[in-house]
Amino acid sequence: ATKLRRCIVSPYDPRYSAWEVWLVVLVVYSAWISPFEFAFLTYKKDALFIFDNIVNGFFAVDIVLTFFVAYLDSQSYLLIDDPKKIATRYMSTWFIFDVCSTAPFQSLSLLLRNHGNGLGFNMLSMLRLWRLRRVSAMFARLEKDIRFNYFWTRCTKLVSVTLFAVHCAGCFNYLIADRYPDPKRTWIGAVNPDFKEERLWNRYVTAMYWSITTLTTTGYGDLHAENPREMLFDIFYMLFNLGLTSYLIGNMTNLVVHWTSRTRNFRDTVRAASEFAARNQLPPRIQDQMLSHICLKFKTEGLKQQDTLNGLPKAIRSSIADYLFHPVAQKAYLFREVSQDFLFQLVSEMEAEYFPPKEDVILQNEAPTDLYILVSGTVDLIVHVDGREKVIGKAIAGDMFGEVGVLCCRPQPFTVRTFELSQILRLNGTSLMNTIKANPEDGRVIMNHLSIVCGFIRSLSASFLLPWLNVGFLSYSFTETAGGRKNGF
Amino acid sequence: ATKLRRCIVSPYDPRYSAWEVWLVVLVVYSAWISPFEFAFLTYKKDALFIFDNIVNGFFAVDIVLTFFVAYLDSQSYLLIDDPKKIATRYMSTWFIFDVCSTAPFQSLSLLLRNHGNGLGFNMLSMLRLWRLRRVSAMFARLEKDIRFNYFWTRCTKLVSVTLFAVHCAGCFNYLIADRYPDPKRTWIGAVNPDFKEERLWNRYVTAMYWSITTLTTTGYGDLHAENPREMLFDIFYMLFNLGLTSYLIGNMTNLVVHWTSRTRNFRDTVRAASEFAARNQLPPRIQDQMLSHICLKFKTEGLKQQDTLNGLPKAIRSSIADYLFHPVAQKAYLFREVSQDFLFQLVSEMEAEYFPPKEDVILQNEAPTDLYILVSGTVDLIVHVDGREKVIGKAIAGDMFGEVGVLCCRPQPFTVRTFELSQILRLNGTSLMNTIKANPEDGRVIMNHLSIVCGFIRSLSASFLLPWLNVGFLSYSFTETAGGRKNGF
Amino acid sequence: ATKLRRCIVSPYDPRYSAWEVWLVVLVVYSAWISPFEFAFLTYKKDALFIFDNIVNGFFAVDIVLTFFVAYLDSQSYLLIDDPKKIATRYMSTWFIFDVCSTAPFQSLSLLLRNHGNGLGFNMLSMLRLWRLRRVSAMFARLEKDIRFNYFWTRCTKLVSVTLFAVHCAGCFNYLIADRYPDPKRTWIGAVNPDFKEERLWNRYVTAMYWSITTLTTTGYGDLHAENPREMLFDIFYMLFNLGLTSYLIGNMTNLVVHWTSRTRNFRDTVRAASEFAARNQLPPRIQDQMLSHICLKFKTEGLKQQDTLNGLPKAIRSSIADYLFHPVAQKAYLFREVSQDFLFQLVSEMEAEYFPPKEDVILQNEAPTDLYILVSGTVDLIVHVDGREKVIGKAIAGDMFGEVGVLCCRPQPFTVRTFELSQILRLNGTSLMNTIKANPEDGRVIMNHLSIVCGFIRSLSASFLLPWLNVGFLSYSFTETAGGRKNGF
Amino acid sequence: ATKLRRCIVSPYDPRYSAWEVWLVVLVVYSAWISPFEFAFLTYKKDALFIFDNIVNGFFAVDIVLTFFVAYLDSQSYLLIDDPKKIATRYMSTWFIFDVCSTAPFQSLSLLLRNHGNGLGFNMLSMLRLWRLRRVSAMFARLEKDIRFNYFWTRCTKLVSVTLFAVHCAGCFNYLIADRYPDPKRTWIGAVNPDFKEERLWNRYVTAMYWSITTLTTTGYGDLHAENPREMLFDIFYMLFNLGLTSYLIGNMTNLVVHWTSRTRNFRDTVRAASEFAARNQLPPRIQDQMLSHICLKFKTEGLKQQDTLNGLPKAIRSSIADYLFHPVAQKAYLFREVSQDFLFQLVSEMEAEYFPPKEDVILQNEAPTDLYILVSGTVDLIVHVDGREKVIGKAIAGDMFGEVGVLCCRPQPFTVRTFELSQILRLNGTSLMNTIKANPEDGRVIMNHLSIVCGFIRSLSASFLLPWLNVGFLSYSFTETAGGRKNGF
Repeated sequence: ATKLRRCIVSPYDPRYSAWEVWLVVLVVYSAWISPFEFAFLTYKKDALFIFDNIVNGFFAVDIVLTFFVAYLDSQSYLLIDDPKKIATRYMSTWFIFDVCSTAPFQSLSLLLRNHGNGLGFNMLSMLRLWRLRRVSAMFARLEKDIRFNYFWTRCTKLVSVTLFAVHCAGCFNYLIADRYPDPKRTWIGAVNPDFKEERLWNRYVTAMYWSITTLTTTGYGDLHAENPREMLFDIFYMLFNLGLTSYLIGNMTNLVVHWTSRTRNFRDTVRAASEFAARNQLPPRIQDQMLSHICLKFKTEGLKQQDTLNGLPKAIRSSIADYLFHPVAQKAYLFREVSQDFLFQLVSEMEAEYFPPKEDVILQNEAPTDLYILVSGTVDLIVHVDGREKVIGKAIAGDMFGEVGVLCCRPQPFTVRTFELSQILRLNGTSLMNTIKANPEDGRVIMNHLSIVCGFIRSLSASFLLPWLNVGFLSYSFTETAGGRKNGF
Repeated sequence: ATKLRRCIVSPYDPRYSAWEVWLVVLVVYSAWISPFEFAFLTYKKDALFIFDNIVNGFFAVDIVLTFFVAYLDSQSYLLIDDPKKIATRYMSTWFIFDVCSTAPFQSLSLLLRNHGNGLGFNMLSMLRLWRLRRVSAMFARLEKDIRFNYFWTRCTKLVSVTLFAVHCAGCFNYLIADRYPDPKRTWIGAVNPDFKEERLWNRYVTAMYWSITTLTTTGYGDLHAENPREMLFDIFYMLFNLGLTSYLIGNMTNLVVHWTSRTRNFRDTVRAASEFAARNQLPPRIQDQMLSHICLKFKTEGLKQQDTLNGLPKAIRSSIADYLFHPVAQKAYLFREVSQDFLFQLVSEMEAEYFPPKEDVILQNEAPTDLYILVSGTVDLIVHVDGREKVIGKAIAGDMFGEVGVLCCRPQPFTVRTFELSQILRLNGTSLMNTIKANPEDGRVIMNHLSIVCGFIRSLSASFLLPWLNVGFLSYSFTETAGGRKNGF
Repeated sequence: ATKLRRCIVSPYDPRYSAWEVWLVVLVVYSAWISPFEFAFLTYKKDALFIFDNIVNGFFAVDIVLTFFVAYLDSQSYLLIDDPKKIATRYMSTWFIFDVCSTAPFQSLSLLLRNHGNGLGFNMLSMLRLWRLRRVSAMFARLEKDIRFNYFWTRCTKLVSVTLFAVHCAGCFNYLIADRYPDPKRTWIGAVNPDFKEERLWNRYVTAMYWSITTLTTTGYGDLHAENPREMLFDIFYMLFNLGLTSYLIGNMTNLVVHWTSRTRNFRDTVRAASEFAARNQLPPRIQDQMLSHICLKFKTEGLKQQDTLNGLPKAIRSSIADYLFHPVAQKAYLFREVSQDFLFQLVSEMEAEYFPPKEDVILQNEAPTDLYILVSGTVDLIVHVDGREKVIGKAIAGDMFGEVGVLCCRPQPFTVRTFELSQILRLNGTSLMNTIKANPEDGRVIMNHLSIVCGFIRSLSASFLLPWLNVGFLSYSFTETAGGRKNGF
Repeated sequence: ATKLRRCIVSPYDPRYSAWEVWLVVLVVYSAWISPFEFAFLTYKKDALFIFDNIVNGFFAVDIVLTFFVAYLDSQSYLLIDDPKKIATRYMSTWFIFDVCSTAPFQSLSLLLRNHGNGLGFNMLSMLRLWRLRRVSAMFARLEKDIRFNYFWTRCTKLVSVTLFAVHCAGCFNYLIADRYPDPKRTWIGAVNPDFKEERLWNRYVTAMYWSITTLTTTGYGDLHAENPREMLFDIFYMLFNLGLTSYLIGNMTNLVVHWTSRTRNFRDTVRAASEFAARNQLPPRIQDQMLSHICLKFKTEGLKQQDTLNGLPKAIRSSIADYLFHPVAQKAYLFREVSQDFLFQLVSEMEAEYFPPKEDVILQNEAPTDLYILVSGTVDLIVHVDGREKVIGKAIAGDMFGEVGVLCCRPQPFTVRTFELSQILRLNGTSLMNTIKANPEDGRVIMNHLSIVCGFIRSLSASFLLPWLNVGFLSYSFTETAGGRKNGF
């Protein structure tokens, strides 16, 4: 949305894009009609003549218009709207080709019909195929545009190329037969000696039929070259076909490989997990957790997302984390009343993960490394008493767990298991400690919050958790860290 | 095994799965019979008419049934059994298509035969091909199901698609010939002018023969298009074939690449190892150890397994380690009488590895980094005296080795070499030290165990190991660590 | 540019390369003319005879010349110019083949025509095809030469192989027909019984037409084997074609996969970013930053460059960094007057990165980890006051930012956002600190520079930055580091 | 070389391997002759009959022999030589198939010729094709055997499969024509009505010609199906061909991709380096160093070797390092007289690298991180005086450099540049320090050696190196480390 000079159009203007699409439509028409006219029609002043010149007119307009369209400079990544620079750039690149492909050679040929052979002028009209560069450019653009499916874009391109090749080859082959002195010794005349009297439609279909029979290498042989001239054309067409067919197959292989790679990765991962489970005779509960975790990871494409984020520079990642996790983190009881700067530094260390239903997030007695904030879903807090599991609570969105383990350097007091699909923020304990060290005031706020919840847990521990809570709660290491810092400032 | 409402069937119910398989069988029948009836048979009230309507009936039943089948919600990953939601979902997706593909248009056409052209109604019966989406969905399911071999699933799918294409093209091509005004100017009539009097079987085989000759691009040319109508059909069929053939080849390439990738990786790894050994003229004993290690790793797919485990979240990995290694670890002499929590934290740091026969696990005098517990198999303990190897003992399943080196910070006292295929648990020394630091009481238990074995080793050292044991056994670093902690609590 | 003995030519001498290219041209001529002469021409003393012998002469000269060309030893990587070694090497490798392929067997056959069958001698002239190894070697060289496009080199090679196969097969098939006792029962005679009276051009085109019709598996059938001898030849040719076609398709697939891989990676990365943005409903500003960063990274191939550098040994990397970053770094105010050695160690830790316009490099309040030097472009310094952004300054090429955060261990005082495409050097704070520790004198110089800028920032802080600057500016940690070092020396 | 029971043969015995190869030869003969006899020959008591029964005899001998061949148990990886287990294993797997494929059904048919149709017995003789599993097993073995080239093994396999398919299809198609009631309405009879009187060779070649024309989809059409029976056979053959052709192409693609991947990686790496150099206008000297380093790395496959080593367990790596580097390291002056254990721990930390001529290994003033021992080749020691390079010495195989920088924590005193291709051992400074810490006595020995060289360097410094040597040579950090340790023990 940069402001451009008056009279200069941006290449991203939707009206200019529409104009370009319209030109592509005209190009497709030109590409089809040019070889067709060349082979099947006698050129004369009729409706088609007028229509052709109208089409030519549009392209002439475009040549003029190009002088008023800004372009993106490849060095500075800025839109250049200086008319002089625009003109210089165009004149030194496509200008001459565009003019040649627009010049009305056929109309000229009509004027000069008496003075020379029309074939030469018709050949010149083949210059119009230069316009196909627009189609090629459009496909290159579409392939990079993720709004369009890559598979179908690519297929459309391949089908277009194939159809155009078939059409051209059919037309030229007919032209050769049409101009051959002995109509009976031509590919079409050998079957139907009076082919020139046939309906245009029938002749065109026959030419197309021969062309595609050859391109697909079916080669029925009902229509085949009868004279050296046709043989020579066939030799080149078949060589070209060999390349085109290889190219089609190569592209299809490429697409199939890409297409099936996700399913294949999924299968390989699931199989490796299943084989591992089977070989070690893991109990079904663990097996289910493994498989549902893998399935979820593939469904949410968790891996890809992480790669995407890691590829971005730190400032963007911080922006994203701030936008996504700040509202959640500031509602967590531990981080209430802490400074915005502290939270800002903290959220850039957080990671979001999805857990399927019934999966363990924390195991009781595990060494604590992370603390978690529940973004959505529900988790059960479970303790093992006498070998049986007992649900002692539920945590809902906004709750935090694992913080007691991390901040007090204690094994985790309970197992945390998801009840439904849950999104959970994970914060590494070491990162938290480092951030607290750098912001001692906020550390004190957090310690106050923690001492409240400790009271609650201590009361719980009376019934269940006594064995592991009989040592002083706030461990030496935490006190030292926070305390030492306080003195330092 | 979630409880659903009465009258609502789970989509995972085995009876419903059986019903779905039965419908797929009917779909296959429909897909084959529909084009065949269309091209070769005159529709009238006979056995086939009744059979067709019975098949239709089953699909009608399925439409009704679908209103009573729960579905998995893609947001919450829960089975939805609310009839209203089920109905809304079905009505807004496939319902209309299902109804159209089930409506008995042919029976209607029979009633109206006198009043209109039957071709239109026959065309409508092509709507039944919509049912093929069930086959497509089934293949998508099978491809993700690791109980079925991916290669054969994929091949079956490709063969089915090919056969269906051949069948349809053959039928339609026959239809064109059958309806053409001049039977002699048709692809089949040119060879056999009285083809309409031929047996149905012969006509069908001829149509299939033509169809497959064209699809495989063999194109003998004994049967070929004779009129523009057939040429046009051939053009489209050949274009389609070009795509289909590319698709088949692309898929096959994909499968071959995947199939051979394991052998290829194996070869590459073995070759790299052999070349390395040859270039450096390694002695045969080391060379054998390298190759047998690589072979075993590929046979047990050790690499893949480790990747699988690393992809899982920590809690699941801890569960698995606890299940697998706890029984072994608690029998190891060093960990007898330690607390369950300590063991739980320890096993999550352990890794299981396989060693082929005659491979060195530890080398004498090596810097110690890991300790090992033997899960299965036997290992020899070897010392080098005067340049010769002497076996001083054997360790069997449940024994531990390398612990003296790690806990006393001494070079390993003997070489440990496997006698047969052995599974060995590895525990990193640093992890063990960290866990001991966090659990000082258990550390004391371990030190007691260690002092006993030290006595044994010291007595050994009298004969063999004297040179490196003349310094105090329990090294300064270990004492400091454990002692410092003791004071800290 | 090593000095060689007199009379010995370097293989890298441009004149020798020109000679080799000339020989390749002659080889191409030989490869085409040999089968052609063999099949279509009666050998006699005419212009062609003389021309052939001239060509042979060139190859004879090359045999002699080879004794005077140095070669690169594969062990020591040195050019060997000892004539004895050169001769030994040549005699023990290609010498005999080269002589055989140069001997004028055809001229001899002319002398002996009366005494034996000419076919045997003609067969011997096929030995000339041995010369093709030069073409093969040339293609192997071209493929590794990055001045030539891999795709076109490979395509040229494949087309050459295909054309040569077509040419040879056509010639040999004609030869078989030509020598067959019954001309009417040959592939060409069945269509044109008087084919031997046809013009040479027509016969050659017909042979090529048959050959390519078979190679591409089109197989019209207008020309086909008529006797067992031809059938046998066809069997082998078709088997060969099966291999060649597979090889062509395999190569094309390979090229297509490689070709599209960049677009595909780009699409996948952009899609992953877009999906992530859409799922998390990120604000458009962050979304734009993400996408323009990804686009720029692909355009400048930032990833590949980093890989290239990492693959090089440390000394080369240091040389490069010194060459690239030294002039920029020594102009940065912080590093003015520091010693060259200090700068040398510093620049090898720097990394250059490009940032698109409007992208955040540093966010206000972010934890500081890196300092930056602007190489080119402009950046805005922005502070957030009351939730609104305020530009407080601009930095131009040569300016440094982020250093206050890093050296004073403070959150970054302002957001830094690029104004246009900018290249920025990044230096990790820890690396800087380590280098300062090892060079205490230079550390003191830097501190002096820093204290000046601090004064400036403090004056700024009066208006905007007061809230976070009320603590002493030079933080404890930096003082301690530098001070402690000062005492240590 | 394990000792087996008497009468039991090891599967790895070279005589048994020879016997297996001989059987494979017989299998190839059987596979060719069985379809051929079936289609072309009338079975009677002639030389072929006797020959066939001799071949059968060999296979009968093999069935008996198999009971005396040990096998490798897949669980314990041990050779099992218990005759009972061998018998059980064989009886429960291939025994019945082997017996059926060896039974002389044709000889029986000869006895019963009068009483029934010979076709059934001939069909039974097709059971001999079961023997092909031996060929399949042999190819699977060859593919994993790195002594054989993968490409050619795979190609041979594909060609064999293709030829066998062609042979079988040709024979069966001839059989159908031979048994058809109306010889004129068969594929061969339509062209040559008296085909049954033709020579066997001509009939066989014609059948092969048809078969391969169809397989390669050339389909000339001169020979084509004439009756429904042949059409049906063709349909199945063409479907099979579609699969086979896809399989061939898939394999070829796979091989081509693998084949070209090395060249391609090389190109990509060189291009990335060249582009980087061009974009940054690096001076030619650095550019040459980059390119020659990359070329050397690809030639010596340095990357692969490192991967191979990293995949091996620690003990094997230590063995290799000890074998390779011990002789070199103990000759280095710094490590003379140190204990063997110390050296053993040190060499496992070393890495060998190749450097091309004229490449910098160390740059003057670089921060020191590694020390180097020259294994082979020569390096120049260079100092920069007044911006010019001056060679102050040469190091030859066995010399050490960089140790002063590492052990005295000083920037490197001179640039080290290779003179010719050199192999250099690299030892990380930190690893050396850690090993010295663990072996204080050896540390003292090393310090003594170092003080001698320091004297030498100090004397040098008088002329060149004064500026950076004016501080005390043995730096504080090293003294502290070694000294602190001395006290600790």
